[in-house]
Amino acid sequence: MLVLVTYDVNTETKAGQRRLRKVAKKCEAYGIRVQNSVFECVVDHTQFFQLKKELSEIINEETDSLRFYQLGNKYKTKVEHVGAKTTLNVEDPLIL
Amino acid sequence: MLVLVTYDVNTETKAGQRRLRKVAKKCEAYGIRVQNSVFECVVDHTQFFQLKKELSEIINEETDSLRFYQLGNKYKTKVEHVGAKTTLNVEDPLIL
Repeated sequence: MLVLVTYDVNTETKAGQRRLRKVAKKCEAYGIRVQNSVFECVVDHTQFFQLKKELSEIINEETDSLRFYQLGNKYKTKVEHVGAKTTLNVEDPLIL
Repeated sequence: MLVLVTYDVNTETKAGQRRLRKVAKKCEAYGIRVQNSVFECVVDHTQFFQLKKELSEIINEETDSLRFYQLGNKYKTKVEHVGAKTTLNVEDPLIL
């Protein structure tokens, strides 16, 4: 299923800047970045649980926020893009 | 239906900063801000078409991007939040 992860991390401190990098890096392990703080992750339920757990352990719950949106398995018609940085379809074969 | 709007606007120029404000203002007319550049809008198909059109007319398609995610009508179980700034449920009665 496709899960959209969006986040806001308070980067006023060095620690916040570190958290931001860690959150992005963690999301990259599960999916692709489609906008600055928006990732699309194709995961199963176990992986989704794990992703939420790992991200929740990184952020400061007082100042940062995470949002997860489950778009199910038939998501291609549910997502539209306008403008710059069109992204790879997460399941398209990567031809290297 | 719930539509999630996420956007990246290039704010390196004054014009970009103006576009960012305009995009946010337009989204506020249709829904609520849940994170810095993430809005949740409960709209019908006509309103959704209108929202896309109006936002597309604001951005610079070379440098900015918009993404729309349709979460359907039964969306409450599809959305999870962790951390700061929990938001009002868009359809909860506002008790003033």
